[in-house]
Amino acid sequence: MTDLDLARELNRPAPTKIVLLVLDGLGGLPREPGGPTELEAAHTPNLDGLTSHASLGQLIPIRPGITPGSGPAHLALFGYDPVQHRIGRGVLEATGVGLEVHRGDVAARGNFVTLDRAGRIQDRRAGRISTGEAAPLVDQMAAVEIPGARFEVRHVREYRFAVVLRGPGHSANLEDTDPQASEQPPAPVRARTPDAEPAARLFQQWIEASSRLLADHPRANGLTLRGFSTDPDFPRFPDIYGLRAACAAVYPMYRGVASLVGMQILPVSGERPEDEFRTVVQAWPDFDFFFIHIKKTDSRGEDGDFEGKAAEIEAVDAALPSLLAAGPDVLALTGDHSTPSRMRTHSWHPVPLLLWAPATARGLGPTKFGETSCARGDLGTLPSTALMPLLMAHAQRFDKFGA
Amino acid sequence: MTDLDLARELNRPAPTKIVLLVLDGLGGLPREPGGPTELEAAHTPNLDGLTSHASLGQLIPIRPGITPGSGPAHLALFGYDPVQHRIGRGVLEATGVGLEVHRGDVAARGNFVTLDRAGRIQDRRAGRISTGEAAPLVDQMAAVEIPGARFEVRHVREYRFAVVLRGPGHSANLEDTDPQASEQPPAPVRARTPDAEPAARLFQQWIEASSRLLADHPRANGLTLRGFSTDPDFPRFPDIYGLRAACAAVYPMYRGVASLVGMQILPVSGERPEDEFRTVVQAWPDFDFFFIHIKKTDSRGEDGDFEGKAAEIEAVDAALPSLLAAGPDVLALTGDHSTPSRMRTHSWHPVPLLLWAPATARGLGPTKFGETSCARGDLGTLPSTALMPLLMAHAQRFDKFGA
Repeated sequence: MTDLDLARELNRPAPTKIVLLVLDGLGGLPREPGGPTELEAAHTPNLDGLTSHASLGQLIPIRPGITPGSGPAHLALFGYDPVQHRIGRGVLEATGVGLEVHRGDVAARGNFVTLDRAGRIQDRRAGRISTGEAAPLVDQMAAVEIPGARFEVRHVREYRFAVVLRGPGHSANLEDTDPQASEQPPAPVRARTPDAEPAARLFQQWIEASSRLLADHPRANGLTLRGFSTDPDFPRFPDIYGLRAACAAVYPMYRGVASLVGMQILPVSGERPEDEFRTVVQAWPDFDFFFIHIKKTDSRGEDGDFEGKAAEIEAVDAALPSLLAAGPDVLALTGDHSTPSRMRTHSWHPVPLLLWAPATARGLGPTKFGETSCARGDLGTLPSTALMPLLMAHAQRFDKFGA
Repeated sequence: MTDLDLARELNRPAPTKIVLLVLDGLGGLPREPGGPTELEAAHTPNLDGLTSHASLGQLIPIRPGITPGSGPAHLALFGYDPVQHRIGRGVLEATGVGLEVHRGDVAARGNFVTLDRAGRIQDRRAGRISTGEAAPLVDQMAAVEIPGARFEVRHVREYRFAVVLRGPGHSANLEDTDPQASEQPPAPVRARTPDAEPAARLFQQWIEASSRLLADHPRANGLTLRGFSTDPDFPRFPDIYGLRAACAAVYPMYRGVASLVGMQILPVSGERPEDEFRTVVQAWPDFDFFFIHIKKTDSRGEDGDFEGKAAEIEAVDAALPSLLAAGPDVLALTGDHSTPSRMRTHSWHPVPLLLWAPATARGLGPTKFGETSCARGDLGTLPSTALMPLLMAHAQRFDKFGA
């Protein structure tokens, strides 16, 4: 019996509201030995104040030492073992921009690339072409017609787009066309198994037709596809936990993963934390669970911008009262993974967790929320998949196990 | 290979003695942020003194966020994954009062109830009828005879009794007769599968005959049965660990779970910690492992009595020298789960663990034993199933794994 089965067995209704506030890449590292991390350097009076009715701990996203991508890291926070529950990159990208993907469809993530005259890739991201310049190219590709097939394509951001071949009956067992090396042409679409031959042929025709439309663009004159995949058919979050669940996220990929587990996606206008919080507050009566995703902590970490990441954390802290005013019963603030600005990339380091639950959390004396206090926290070190059961428990939404 | 298989493979004889002292519901919560828990408020000079030859940590009974019943919580302490090893309530109750349950028998837990004239349940616990008043009713029911069947019934405590239908060959796939709602009559015994039809019919006849005997009682004029179950046939604790194992417990249910894993039950006269300790000391030469269960910490927690729970912990502390005088090599003091008096119920919070082993434990400077020191303890946060292997290791009773 998996932990998801156990949650399905034990969940019960309660009039409580849960908020899961994810600061992407929250975990960090100090710049000098013994110094503060980004989170510890940030001035966070509201978060620190919450610790008097909270528990602290740290989460391991996938397994110790494993650096997660965004999809698996979020699945783990939702309680799904990410090693058992794999999401293809194509599905994640497509779903994130609102392209539904069903069994028998095949989704892929696309990159615009710059090709030289011999057709070899010179830039795998087409010079990081702007959204404004790339979106019209995707509009042109949307008009491509391949006999006997139906394709849908949608722009994501900058050089990235998603494309879906509609089924029924297609297999996604296809090789990426990105050669993962410079000075190589894009590879043709190859089937890994015979049942994927029709999809391989149709995608190849679609690439060739689309490439003809792009041929004269100075930078985006080619494309690659990868992460061919279909609906992973996960058990649905609302069924597992008995929660009406909503997602507020600015970036498409996070809406995608929330949507794949069956959360309802709330439209957010604006990109600041307070915009997302306002969205949640407006939807408050209609849901029991809110997943809120803050992207910029991760972006500043990837930029290597220690002060900038701390500032993004401070912006969340400053906006927090507007969210608390709605009256959640349980609030978890954590990250999907660490993105230490010192490393400029995702990492495997444990992620600090603040679990605020006035009725049932330990409640600490004055404490600065950060990696150090969390590593010594009363919750200990837990896998990210343990978070949802803890939230359910504090929300009085689990029955006792056994007599 | 499960952890039990590993223990079976690695155990070896040694002339060492292990004591597992379980204070039921030991874990607690502070009354105010940063304040002491029940355990931290208790004056425990003997326990605090043990920390100089001990390690500290905290145990998660089932999984994070899962509130355990007593059966599964104890199974976990004995090393059995409680999600894999389920015990029916009927078996637990029957075994606890010394009614053996074998494969093909069916055990149920019974409640006396108060029925109105229309046969609807007015009180699911018969006004919490006293043991003195209820025991003679059970004696009357013991005389009930159903043709072609053999029933045994025994009083547990107050409004509760256990009944066993002897096999061979019966199925326990039966629905509870407790309707779990007020103003309803008890449900008839229904089979969930055809092979349980004979047991359903016999139990129904037994209920009808017993109910006729009760009809004139002012409060206990009816009964319900639930938790129909048979011997779960667990691997035996003495075989897994190579330990001659004994249990000293005042309350029947804990004797029941110890008996189900094959421990020998020691008769305890008296209900105080020193009575249980005396029992253990007297049996000292005959066993390698003693499980001692203290109930009242949980009871005071369920009463919401912070000071009372602390006082029960102090009573154990005061009696401890009489147990230590027997000369254990390893002593674990922990709980099966938390019962914070603030919550008045079992909870999922991690449980503090003191593992005293002069020869091999870390050994700490002066330390107050409590949730805070245990959350930061040298053992970290572990599942309860990790305790038995640790005790075996400190008792020099495990071989090295691999060359």
